[in-house]
Amino acid sequence: MTPRISPERLQQGLEELARFGGRPDGGVDRLAGTPADLEARRWLAGRMGELGLEAALWLAGRMGELGLEAALDEVNNVFGHPPGGGPWLLLGSHTDTVPAGGRLDGAYGVIAALEAYRAVREAAHPAAARLALVSFHDEEGVSGHGFEGSEHFCASPSLTFVSGYLELHIEQGPRLEAEGKDLGVVDAIVGIDRYQVEIRGEANHAGTTPFSYRKDAGRTAARFIGHLRELVQGVDERMVANVGSLELEPGAPNQVPGRARFLVELRGPAAGLLASAGQVARDELQRLAAEEGCSVEVAAQSSWPAMAMFPGYVSALERVCARSGLAWARLASGAGHDAEILARHVPAAMLFVPSRRGISHSPLEYTDPRLLAQGCQALLEAALEVLGEG
Amino acid sequence: MTPRISPERLQQGLEELARFGGRPDGGVDRLAGTPADLEARRWLAGRMGELGLEAALWLAGRMGELGLEAALDEVNNVFGHPPGGGPWLLLGSHTDTVPAGGRLDGAYGVIAALEAYRAVREAAHPAAARLALVSFHDEEGVSGHGFEGSEHFCASPSLTFVSGYLELHIEQGPRLEAEGKDLGVVDAIVGIDRYQVEIRGEANHAGTTPFSYRKDAGRTAARFIGHLRELVQGVDERMVANVGSLELEPGAPNQVPGRARFLVELRGPAAGLLASAGQVARDELQRLAAEEGCSVEVAAQSSWPAMAMFPGYVSALERVCARSGLAWARLASGAGHDAEILARHVPAAMLFVPSRRGISHSPLEYTDPRLLAQGCQALLEAALEVLGEG
Repeated sequence: MTPRISPERLQQGLEELARFGGRPDGGVDRLAGTPADLEARRWLAGRMGELGLEAALWLAGRMGELGLEAALDEVNNVFGHPPGGGPWLLLGSHTDTVPAGGRLDGAYGVIAALEAYRAVREAAHPAAARLALVSFHDEEGVSGHGFEGSEHFCASPSLTFVSGYLELHIEQGPRLEAEGKDLGVVDAIVGIDRYQVEIRGEANHAGTTPFSYRKDAGRTAARFIGHLRELVQGVDERMVANVGSLELEPGAPNQVPGRARFLVELRGPAAGLLASAGQVARDELQRLAAEEGCSVEVAAQSSWPAMAMFPGYVSALERVCARSGLAWARLASGAGHDAEILARHVPAAMLFVPSRRGISHSPLEYTDPRLLAQGCQALLEAALEVLGEG
Repeated sequence: MTPRISPERLQQGLEELARFGGRPDGGVDRLAGTPADLEARRWLAGRMGELGLEAALWLAGRMGELGLEAALDEVNNVFGHPPGGGPWLLLGSHTDTVPAGGRLDGAYGVIAALEAYRAVREAAHPAAARLALVSFHDEEGVSGHGFEGSEHFCASPSLTFVSGYLELHIEQGPRLEAEGKDLGVVDAIVGIDRYQVEIRGEANHAGTTPFSYRKDAGRTAARFIGHLRELVQGVDERMVANVGSLELEPGAPNQVPGRARFLVELRGPAAGLLASAGQVARDELQRLAAEEGCSVEVAAQSSWPAMAMFPGYVSALERVCARSGLAWARLASGAGHDAEILARHVPAAMLFVPSRRGISHSPLEYTDPRLLAQGCQALLEAALEVLGEG
């Protein structure tokens, strides 16, 4: 019989964790490396120990020290596993937050993994010996570059004891709620390419320079930004793009802008799509600049590769969702997650639950407890499915 | 026989004036009220005196003191007139500059008026008794609001001694040069309406928020700015518009802009056109905001009325241009000039000569001496035409 998670214990776990760095407004300040973050990790290691898991220091040279009951590794990853050497299917997420973050981003995946493991163990299910738990350090990258814990873990010998990784997370977007879905199966985490664009025209008097004599860098930029959506949707409808700010020079109301600078962010679930959209954007900028008598320079600023989730795990998650009788959808994650780091090295996949109004990284972050419990149970069943014990 | 101006004396006058505040790069720093500006005005009063003109203090209560040979009024206007009480047709412009200004903006109109008067006088033409010369104070408004001298003059009793006003100026725009014209007859000085626009959408995660769920204030602004040209040209092809800067909030590459703020400047040769274009812009902003799920607030920030030149003078200038055999065009001035202040009170009109590449308010300001001489001669003939002595 399939073990059942306890919605009450799941909620209690979330509430206890939310006390570390808790804010009066219901949000959480638990930035990676702060006292609140470390205290939460020690508390978590204690909960793992209660479950008979060994929470270990995962240093390259210290693998022999396994058997500690509650410990953090040198980068503050909390890792708990049953006695023995695995391989284990790893369940987890992260517990650090952004400033004024919410109670669920990351925390939900860690507490749900704890609850799923507890339910499996209480049911004396054999899968209990094949599961391990993790809370990765510094996923958010508020002061660093993010994913520090998962990158450290994947570069350590510890990785060889892990057979795969499942992560449960709130969507942080509006789609599941808007479409009335209870669960989301993530088939890819989008890649992010950023381009720095500089359009050069000619600053001029906005009164004495007729339109036909202008080389208006601002108009060129506006024409591009105004239909960027249609451009990338023309490449693939799963893509998005953004321009968050625009700098025009000289910047006076009566001066035709001679320069425009902005950053284009493209997101897509596959590297090929990102490259295509980048080329389409470049071509369109060239075309518009030529039409407006301007020149344009486009420089790649950064590129985070898209990461497909492991097809076998995606199929397993879909089977679990289908059996649950709940409404579900397959979707790409528009935000980054530790799962994209793990997926470079081991089979990995993610499950989403809806986010109320898509709000995240905010004290207003909220998902109905019923949906949280359903997601936790689905994680449990997904783990059993992946292990062939469903 | 029509008196002829001397191109050499015109050039010499321009060069002498350019020494006051002259810059090594060929430009001029002669901001209103600075020692260089005052010195230039005293020099000018001296030149007027050499021509037998009385350069007078034009204070309301000091009209009786006429007869001074070289003087500035209380706001530094330099005004020179023949003995007697007029009425005189006033010729002139201003000699103050912007910082790092050019040698021609304003200065050309004053020196050309001096030369035209000298030629008329040397020819013993009867019109010499009916002409007066002026260099208005602080047209540029670098620290003040501009047009101080002409506004002061028009508010003083002195105005009653003036029958009309003609001003010669460089175009400060590219049109005449591009169209191969030697002279421009100005039929209107554009009015300027400025609107402050604020578009309110919803700041959101640029990765997890699909396009269809966004309320993107930046995209709304870009769509408007990208076809502002077509919007105002649809109202009247003599209109122009500009957006010189755009502020997006929160302003990060991965955040959908929740607010957009910008200033729209509209210029047109008639108040009705400005009002129409303002309404068209408002309507379009409302339409785009509704389409994008945003709201918009448009507030009138400032309004400088358009000013038509006096039709009788415009016709007289056109007759002079036609007789000259030179290529000429009728156009509206996109920049403000003292003539728009005078035109509120007395018949007034303007003549333009081309500006090389449309550059002005810059040491690079330049017009070929041949064109400057032609403009000066045209001013002389226009004065005679207006006085019925052509």
